Amino acid sequence: MEFSVTILGTSSALPTLDRYPTAHALNVHERFFLIDCGEGTQAQLRRNHFKMVRINHIFITHLHGDHVFGIFGLLSTMNLLGRKSNLHIYGHRLLKSILDDHLKYFGQDFQYKIEFHEVAVKSKEIIYEDDSLLVEAFPLKHRVSCFGYLFRERAPHRNIHKWMIEKYKLSLAEVVRIRNGADLTLEDGEVIPNEVLTYIPYEPRSYAFCSDTAYSNRIHEYVKDVDLLYHEATFTEELKKMAAQTGHSTAKQAGKIARLANAKKLIVGHFSSRYKDYSVFLREAKEEFDNVELAKEGSTFSIELKRFKD
Amino acid sequence: MEFSVTILGTSSALPTLDRYPTAHALNVHERFFLIDCGEGTQAQLRRNHFKMVRINHIFITHLHGDHVFGIFGLLSTMNLLGRKSNLHIYGHRLLKSILDDHLKYFGQDFQYKIEFHEVAVKSKEIIYEDDSLLVEAFPLKHRVSCFGYLFRERAPHRNIHKWMIEKYKLSLAEVVRIRNGADLTLEDGEVIPNEVLTYIPYEPRSYAFCSDTAYSNRIHEYVKDVDLLYHEATFTEELKKMAAQTGHSTAKQAGKIARLANAKKLIVGHFSSRYKDYSVFLREAKEEFDNVELAKEGSTFSIELKRFKD
Repeated sequence: MEFSVTILGTSSALPTLDRYPTAHALNVHERFFLIDCGEGTQAQLRRNHFKMVRINHIFITHLHGDHVFGIFGLLSTMNLLGRKSNLHIYGHRLLKSILDDHLKYFGQDFQYKIEFHEVAVKSKEIIYEDDSLLVEAFPLKHRVSCFGYLFRERAPHRNIHKWMIEKYKLSLAEVVRIRNGADLTLEDGEVIPNEVLTYIPYEPRSYAFCSDTAYSNRIHEYVKDVDLLYHEATFTEELKKMAAQTGHSTAKQAGKIARLANAKKLIVGHFSSRYKDYSVFLREAKEEFDNVELAKEGSTFSIELKRFKD
Repeated sequence: MEFSVTILGTSSALPTLDRYPTAHALNVHERFFLIDCGEGTQAQLRRNHFKMVRINHIFITHLHGDHVFGIFGLLSTMNLLGRKSNLHIYGHRLLKSILDDHLKYFGQDFQYKIEFHEVAVKSKEIIYEDDSLLVEAFPLKHRVSCFGYLFRERAPHRNIHKWMIEKYKLSLAEVVRIRNGADLTLEDGEVIPNEVLTYIPYEPRSYAFCSDTAYSNRIHEYVKDVDLLYHEATFTEELKKMAAQTGHSTAKQAGKIARLANAKKLIVGHFSSRYKDYSVFLREAKEEFDNVELAKEGSTFSIELKRFKD
């Protein structure tokens, strides 16, 4: 029951020698999701042992090249690798035009179909769901339309406490009813609520991706109580003004969002290429939020499954 | 007086972990030219210490993704780096449509202009010239329109042999005339031809780029006597049939082209990702042509200037 994110790229617009532009790969129960797709993402997927054909959903935050220019090569490679199943791409409506234009030239021999899903949310909205995951999109504050994405594991079905079965000598029929959410009415008319009879076997996990964005006091509400928060930190406090002007955040602002959101852990990335020493990002984020790490190409952050005992 | 080529990428359509898709950077007298631009070319330029803003001419052979998908990121990065001067791009007419479509979305804030030059040659034609270089395009034999490019240093002005000046006691006026190409007429009417009075100070150098192409018995004429020939070798002899079917060559065929062309040196590249051991390419090419090397990311092949003594 994996729930992990692997950082494929962490640089901002100007790539450096050791950093790739933005892309994150998410593994939820061995289903694979890609968030953003900067140039070189297909090579980074390969380097980090992701099978490209197993990615069925790509979420693009916004239409700046460092978040999307890798999609052209990835789509072609998927075709060369024999992809047949539909690929779902989520993003701003213009991304559809861009892909349509592109595929006129380069998609003629594609053996698979691209299903485009326009993201146009003004607040937080569910844009994807399957039996184990919900994905919500929410607006960020950048120079162009930009969306954050929140990946939330679905709450599992509740289990009945074994000792409750014994205590009330439950029949099989009663067990089935309680599993489906019913309360238990005793012979004397007393009602035992379902929440008392049952427990959730594990806490559903969550991951939020917030890049690119200026500091916004709406973000922490969108990602409330998230387990793992990735928030961009293009600049340090010294260049706070430039951050605001260019629609980016400082590491300290990212830390503040994590603190206000009550996140369990923060990753910062999307560092400007002007920085050689990244330790200042860590130091400044920690002024607001202690459990923070720097994004690094190839790092995998796995969110542990917390099982509740019977 | 540099004349060198640096291999930025050598893989074919499916990139591998240690290989990039096709791109070569040419340095002719500290002017920089790019041939093809697969995904990751901008990172490879940086890694190999080329200044992106100093590249003014990009030659694209054909419109398969592994030869062109890196251009989108490169164009954006050039803009971010403050490029103001025009950039010249050469290629098939559809490349103009592709770039126009792309720049509608991603080129709105570009501070420089792209000048597109359509390549549509049926035989060998000069498509670019400056004071030190000529570039000729010629057709290759691939699944889509594809062009090879031949870079030829211009022949230098001829020098007068010092001993001729002494022998005929040439006046300054005569020296100037002879330098401009005149013959010398002696008092007794005898004519000493210009070629006897003068010599070329150095042999002009040349580099030819042939990828992607099936074996074609026209290519060796286009690149006759070239100093350095890059010819694709996607497959080994074992897969000769597949090479022909997919519009590619084997290493042995590349060797044959080099031999027939009387090339001085051959580089083979564009290896299919199915190969792990490349030594077989070298062995098979050598059956036809001895002075051959395998293309390797980051390798620079410098053609030495051969000066002729007075």
